[in-house]
Amino acid sequence: MKKVMGLDIGGTSSKFGTVVDGKIIRQGSLPTCETDDPVDFIRRLKAALGDLSGIEGLGVGAPNGNHLRQTIELAPNLKWKGIIPLARMLEDELNIPVRLTNDANAAALGELKYGSARDMKNFVSVTLGTGLGSGFIVGGELLTGHSGFAGELGQVTVVPGGRLCGCGRLGCLETYVSATGIVKTAQELGGKFSTSREIADSAAAGDVLALKAFDETAKILAVALANTVAVTSPEAIFLFGGLAQAKDLLFRPLQKYFSENLHNIFRGTVSILPSGLPESDAAILGAASLVI
Amino acid sequence: MKKVMGLDIGGTSSKFGTVVDGKIIRQGSLPTCETDDPVDFIRRLKAALGDLSGIEGLGVGAPNGNHLRQTIELAPNLKWKGIIPLARMLEDELNIPVRLTNDANAAALGELKYGSARDMKNFVSVTLGTGLGSGFIVGGELLTGHSGFAGELGQVTVVPGGRLCGCGRLGCLETYVSATGIVKTAQELGGKFSTSREIADSAAAGDVLALKAFDETAKILAVALANTVAVTSPEAIFLFGGLAQAKDLLFRPLQKYFSENLHNIFRGTVSILPSGLPESDAAILGAASLVI
Repeated sequence: MKKVMGLDIGGTSSKFGTVVDGKIIRQGSLPTCETDDPVDFIRRLKAALGDLSGIEGLGVGAPNGNHLRQTIELAPNLKWKGIIPLARMLEDELNIPVRLTNDANAAALGELKYGSARDMKNFVSVTLGTGLGSGFIVGGELLTGHSGFAGELGQVTVVPGGRLCGCGRLGCLETYVSATGIVKTAQELGGKFSTSREIADSAAAGDVLALKAFDETAKILAVALANTVAVTSPEAIFLFGGLAQAKDLLFRPLQKYFSENLHNIFRGTVSILPSGLPESDAAILGAASLVI
Repeated sequence: MKKVMGLDIGGTSSKFGTVVDGKIIRQGSLPTCETDDPVDFIRRLKAALGDLSGIEGLGVGAPNGNHLRQTIELAPNLKWKGIIPLARMLEDELNIPVRLTNDANAAALGELKYGSARDMKNFVSVTLGTGLGSGFIVGGELLTGHSGFAGELGQVTVVPGGRLCGCGRLGCLETYVSATGIVKTAQELGGKFSTSREIADSAAAGDVLALKAFDETAKILAVALANTVAVTSPEAIFLFGGLAQAKDLLFRPLQKYFSENLHNIFRGTVSILPSGLPESDAAILGAASLVI
């Protein structure tokens, strides 16, 4: 049985785990950027990982991970600046094969390998967290494009001249459809919410304003997903992350608006589904799937 | 030297040609839908094609052609209704291998085989005609998606609640960015134009309103193309068809708005270029490339 590791690099902390046969048999975590030097992170990671004998590889999911170049590039939520050849640096230090990709791509690969997409060749995985990430599987392979950065659905402009995004542009999908986006929407509607969880709890209790915030969020996501179908024609779109945990509060209006916006030639060819991966394990399993 | 044929099925007439080594050595045309029966078309086509000895295959580009199922499905601009298994019907009648795809996919395959994309693995071909068609090459292969209908950029919603599209939905890209779309835009601006050619001629002569119509058209196309880059990250986007013939009138504002809308991680990775195929031959060459 192949024994590998998965590492999920987040803005604040990074989680790692040893994976055997799709199960995490041991895991841990460490702060990501105690300093702006990735060498410091690698040193602390090596200490935390401990004995690597028997480990056949390490898969890494990271923000702005470039699948083709095996680098982290210009990640706005990490202190590390510029272009970091992290996979090579890790290989040099750990002496095991290392593969790296964007964190949302890792989620898509996890869905393909361990989740609900095991029989699929064309699907999209959308992670609704603080921002919105996505990974595309096309013809059974991860879509990387020419740059290695394909699959940035969160950076699609949905409202020209709209909300300011962390990328510096206006009206990106993730400024509306994400944990932070729905809070902004609820506030604009006049609500006093400060987290998406509060909005979900209030909506579940029937609060009209909170329900309206989900409805508005679903409406914008539906158009973006119907547009995505027109381009890549996936068999399924998997939703994952905090907002997707709100289940029917999001899925019910989303299905309605998606159906209204879908071109008729795609009717019956595509489903919107919850991810088949357990929320707590998905990032590590997804990263680990890079080296399976 | 391989000798094949290409057939381009249009709403009014269909063109065919014999292709050897990327050159059309003989061509002809016939009306497409004299009746609503495709069998009638096939009979007339067979007579027009004449002797097929030595021809190794026929490639067909058709509106709403399904690459996976080799059918024409629900084509709004053809009299043939429902789902037509045209490739199989043609093979039965002509006794040569027949392959069929969407007309815009055929243009992309033509660009790959005979045009300016011969060294590329990831690009998009956009045809700006009466409507807007597109074909995507991903990892060197035509993107068909799960349904066989991937690559319908013209059917992406760019203005929710906007202009009525032939597909029955509102605000599709092709209602703004196409020969008919720019005429509508110019009329809304107060112009008295009835063809895109008139607008191009007036713009070339410095007419402010006509220039404004190109600017508005370019602005909408730029956002749609920048969004496309965020999803599939092509190396190039080739523009083809009537509006692209307006050259700098379209390309200059398009490049400006595209650059403004492109996410910074894609800067320097993608170009917008005119097609490298001769306008008059592209449809036949593209279709023929299906059987090379």
